[in-house]
Order: sequence, then C-alpha cells, then structure tokens
Amino acid sequence: MRKFNFCAGPAALPQPVLEQAQRELLDWQGLGCSVMEVSHRSPEFVEVAERAEQDLRDLLSVPSNYKVLFLQGGATGQFSAVPWNLLGAGSSKAEFIHSGSWAAKAIKEARRYGEVNVVASSEDRNFSYAPAADSWQSSGDAAYFHYTPNETIGGVEFGYVPEVECPLVADMSSTILSQPIEVEKFGVIYAGAQKNIGPSGIAVALIRDDLLDRSLENIPRSLSWKVAAEAGSMDNTPPTFAWYLSGLVFQWLKGQGGVDAMAKQADAKSKMLYDFLDSSDFFSSPVEEGSRSRMNVPFVLADDRLDKQFLIESEEAGLLSLKGHRSVGGMRASLYNAVPMEAVEALVAFMADFEARKA
Amino acid sequence: MRKFNFCAGPAALPQPVLEQAQRELLDWQGLGCSVMEVSHRSPEFVEVAERAEQDLRDLLSVPSNYKVLFLQGGATGQFSAVPWNLLGAGSSKAEFIHSGSWAAKAIKEARRYGEVNVVASSEDRNFSYAPAADSWQSSGDAAYFHYTPNETIGGVEFGYVPEVECPLVADMSSTILSQPIEVEKFGVIYAGAQKNIGPSGIAVALIRDDLLDRSLENIPRSLSWKVAAEAGSMDNTPPTFAWYLSGLVFQWLKGQGGVDAMAKQADAKSKMLYDFLDSSDFFSSPVEEGSRSRMNVPFVLADDRLDKQFLIESEEAGLLSLKGHRSVGGMRASLYNAVPMEAVEALVAFMADFEARKA
Repeated sequence: MRKFNFCAGPAALPQPVLEQAQRELLDWQGLGCSVMEVSHRSPEFVEVAERAEQDLRDLLSVPSNYKVLFLQGGATGQFSAVPWNLLGAGSSKAEFIHSGSWAAKAIKEARRYGEVNVVASSEDRNFSYAPAADSWQSSGDAAYFHYTPNETIGGVEFGYVPEVECPLVADMSSTILSQPIEVEKFGVIYAGAQKNIGPSGIAVALIRDDLLDRSLENIPRSLSWKVAAEAGSMDNTPPTFAWYLSGLVFQWLKGQGGVDAMAKQADAKSKMLYDFLDSSDFFSSPVEEGSRSRMNVPFVLADDRLDKQFLIESEEAGLLSLKGHRSVGGMRASLYNAVPMEAVEALVAFMADFEARKA
Repeated sequence: MRKFNFCAGPAALPQPVLEQAQRELLDWQGLGCSVMEVSHRSPEFVEVAERAEQDLRDLLSVPSNYKVLFLQGGATGQFSAVPWNLLGAGSSKAEFIHSGSWAAKAIKEARRYGEVNVVASSEDRNFSYAPAADSWQSSGDAAYFHYTPNETIGGVEFGYVPEVECPLVADMSSTILSQPIEVEKFGVIYAGAQKNIGPSGIAVALIRDDLLDRSLENIPRSLSWKVAAEAGSMDNTPPTFAWYLSGLVFQWLKGQGGVDAMAKQADAKSKMLYDFLDSSDFFSSPVEEGSRSRMNVPFVLADDRLDKQFLIESEEAGLLSLKGHRSVGGMRASLYNAVPMEAVEALVAFMADFEARKA
C-alpha cells in the first residue's frame, strides 16, 4: 500500500507515472526490451528525449533562445559548472545571496574559481528569512549573480526575483515546476531532478544561448554546457531511465493543468500546514512569515524530547520521512507536486491528535 | 515478449532483475513507496548501497586498500577525473595505449591537463588489434599509465594486463564483471554501468587508496575521488535507482556463479559467433585473431548493400540492435553477461539462413 511521502528528496513521484513505468518495465513500446535496454541514439529513445524537452519547454514557456539540457551530477555538479562556464569572459567576479545551506555550497565552490561577493546574507538570524530586495545592491559588473530561490533545508523561499544587470543564475532544485516563472529574467536556471522532476541522477539546466561561450579555459568536458548543448545532452550516454521518467512526469503535469495548477495546489497545501502551525502552541515554524517555503516546511515541537516519539508515530500513521535534515534537526514536510492535498490533511490531522495527546 | 538484445549499451539487463524491480516499483520492502522515493540517507537505502558495494567487492575480490565508488557522469566523466585526480603530485606526464575510439577520447581529455605520451598505437592497421606487450615500453616516470582493455566500438580486447612501474589505470566499461581480474595490478579501474553493471547514469571506480591525494589544485568537487570516498559516494544525492538496480545485478551474478561462470559463458558465446564468422564466406570479422573481444563482436557482410536488409530481417526475427556504431558502420553483436547463449544460437542460425538466401 502506498503511503504519504514527505521526503525532501529523492521525493515522492506521481503514482500514475510509477504505474506506467511498472507496466512497461520489461517490454517498452512492444519493442521486446526495457526502455533501460535501448540505445540512447535509437529513434525510440531520441523521441522520448525530444518530447521531454518539448514538454518542459511548454510547461515553463521557455523562450527559443534558451537551451534545455539534461545533465548528470545533480545540482551539486552545477555548483562547479556555473563558475567554470561563466567566469571566462571578462569579469572573474560573481555575486551571491547567501540564504542557507545550499547557497553556502554554491558559494564555496565558486570561490575556488573566482572572486565571490556576498551581497546579502541572512546568517544574522540563522537563515530564517530571505533578504529583502531593497536590502542589498548588485555592483553591476559581475560575471553573474547567483541565488537560491528556495532553501530546501531551511525552508526559506524568496518572494521575488532579483533585478540585476548581469546574468541571473538560480538553483531552482526544489521549486522548479511548482509555479510559472519568467524564464527571460534568468541567464541560467538549474535544478536537480529528485524533487519536482523525476528520480535522482539527472539534472536540468536552462541556459540563455549567449552564455555558452564564456567558459574558463580547460573546463572539464563533462561540465561544459556548450559541449552538452551541441550534443543534445548526449555527449556521452545519458541516464536514460531517469530522462524517460522525467518525461512521464512532465506529461502528468500537463494533464494536471501545468504549473498554474501546481502553484494553486502548492499555495493551498502549504497554507493549510502553516495555518495549523501558527494556531498551535505545541508546533511552530522557525521561518519568518513572508519567507516561508511552499515546498519545504520545517517545524519544531515545543518539547524536542518528543521528536523521536513523533517520528515513530507519524510513520506508523503512514506519514513518511518527516525527519528534518541532519544539519538542523526538528521536522520537515516537503510538499512537492506529487504530494496530494490529502497527504497534508492527514498530516495536520495527525499533528492535531499528537498535540492533543502529548501537549 | 522479451527479445534477444545485442545492444552495445545501454545494454540488456538480466530478466530476473527487471522482474524484481517491476514487482517492487511502487512499494519497496513494504515501505509504502518506491526505492526511487526514499532518502539516500535512510537506513533502508544505505543498506542497499553498502550491500551493492560488498557484493561488488566479493565478485571482483577487491582488496581492502581499494575504495569502491559509485559515481555520476559515466566513463566519459572519468576521462576528465583521471588526469584531475592523478596529475597533481610530481609527474605531470601520463602514458597511454591508443587502441581505438574510446582510448582516443580518454587521451584527448588527458592532453588538456598534462603531457601525454602514447607509447603504443594500433592506428596503423585501423585499430584492428591490441598492441602486443613486447611492442612497447613504459618510461617508468609517468603519473599513470592508461589503457582500454576492451574497445567497445572496435571490438578489440587485450589478452594481457600491461606491466608498468606507475599506477595502471583501466577503462573497463565493457568488460568489467565478465571475468576475474587481479585488481591489485591496477591503481584505478573505472567503468560506466550500462554494459555489465546496470542501467546508464552510474559509473563504478575502484581506487587504490594511496592515489586519493594526488589531485590537481582546484579539482571540481564533483570529479574528486577523495571527496567521493570520504562521503561514501554520497557527497550529493546519488542516482539511487541505478545504484539499487546495479545491486540487484550483482546479486544475480553471484547466483549465476560469479565472474568465473561469466568468463566461461563469454568464451563459449563469443567462440560460437567467431567460429561461424570464420567459416562463412559472406560474413567476416574485421578484428585480428588474438585481439577479438569476447564482449563486442563487430562483423561485416561481403556485400554492404545488404546491410539494411540484414538489419530489417534480424529485427523481425527478434534479434535487436545489431547495427554497428555510427562511426564504423557494419554490424556489431554485444554479448554481455545478460545476453544468454540462446541469443547467440538464434543469431548464428539467423545469419546462416540469411547467408543461404542472399549469398
């Protein structure tokens, strides 16, 4: 029996997607073999790859001057790829907003390849908010400006898109496909798949095509966006099953009404949980209002000696993976696209009951 | 209905492995979710990861002073990783045997980071043989010596392991797990999974642990063996499904009798096909005797105007993916571990019939 899964990633996948993959796992399209067993250059797989790209373009209204890449190495691989691909043409300076764990990792890797200016940071209040748009300034002469629209661990989401002169780069791992985005405001958008796209092992990058010629000398071939773009993301064998499954998710998303529908659901799901947290004397959110993530909702118990009991009982109640990230503790419910409203209703009901019994 | 699949990669997987994955795709270990939907740091997945590593260690008798890494980016990613990880401690020189398409790619990438000496090459006869052990000499002062034990495209396999003074590095993508290997003769062994290990999207590397401290400065984090080793191959989210499936393949291999049994089968399967090719006036092998691969068997028709007809009819006969690599043309039958003897029997029977009708 399937349970409600709040894992931050690898996260829940839509059940109809898994059912289709299951049905055709041994014999795909009547070919007599699995989709995992065909050449990535076969006409059948190339069609899967191209359809996935087109569906993603449709879902996010990606302008035609952006390349859509399917890459390996996750968003963490892109922490290296971003400076390697962008710091080679003039400016060797990058600007960052430091909003938490994931921004920190991106900053650390970029520092190895250029000068990094952190223009804003929320470290002063333990990364519990997104720095306001009017609290910082971009110098305008950086090679790029990087931020993390949603901190998966901290549960902090930006309510605005930074306005900067240089190419804007965003790690959208945990919010991509959860709402419409104005792609043309960005130079580069990248995301690991294992939250709102598909299984782990594949990452997606949207690159404005004028940014393909700015790499540092001797960029490792596997990090080069230009190499990937020229090879249709098949410079070497791609992760075919992950690509196929991501494509099924895109089709499912279209059937659900696309990112507009996902945005409405994300608002409703997260509102239900935050409203409960705010009304409770026992549970609370450590994130400041106005910066609370629609995708990742960390929360704490008034008495952390009950954490373990909460996790045991919630799991028994069919609510999976509510443990917070090992770096911060507490709890976290991730509410990605594949997590239905019923899951949030069940979670809130369980929490109310737990509070009634233990508080 | 499952057909016989001779794809060079992504290649055939053992049917029992696919059947198990299919059964538990929506509900794994009774957890109420897919193996794709659990955290890579959950105890359940960590057990999968550790068991896969131990099974691979058992299968290849990997000594305890070797790290076993599960990586992203394929063997092509390792073409960059090898020079980045090994050229930073003293010698900036690498030696290579150039045996065909894949060696060429490894050489090209290494040249960007150090001095490359090609000590032997089979280019003189169109890469149709493996240079003999007594035809070349290693200088002894290189940071490493790299070769490609089996050229997947050319169908050329080395019958010996080079004896060199410096660390020996081998791209074993298409022969790993097809025979016993003396791991202690190697400094580094790496392999993309999509031939004899599992689905595409994961690569395996065995690294002698004294080689973890030789990297070039500012090695991209995602290429660093040391980072991967210290994090148990989980510096970031690994490709969990590919790792799990590789683990199922390792268990299947153990049940089949391990690499000794695989070596016997590979000998028998390839002998049957080469014997037929040698006895035919219509089909022939372009590879010199003594260098013929047990895994990848390229062959050509006496009249290449019949190539297309051969491919159409063989596919109709349930024999998939016999087309040779786009760079060389002709045909190729890949006979990895998951391809049973019956597949080769069916292929030879079809070829004999085709020859009788068309020659």
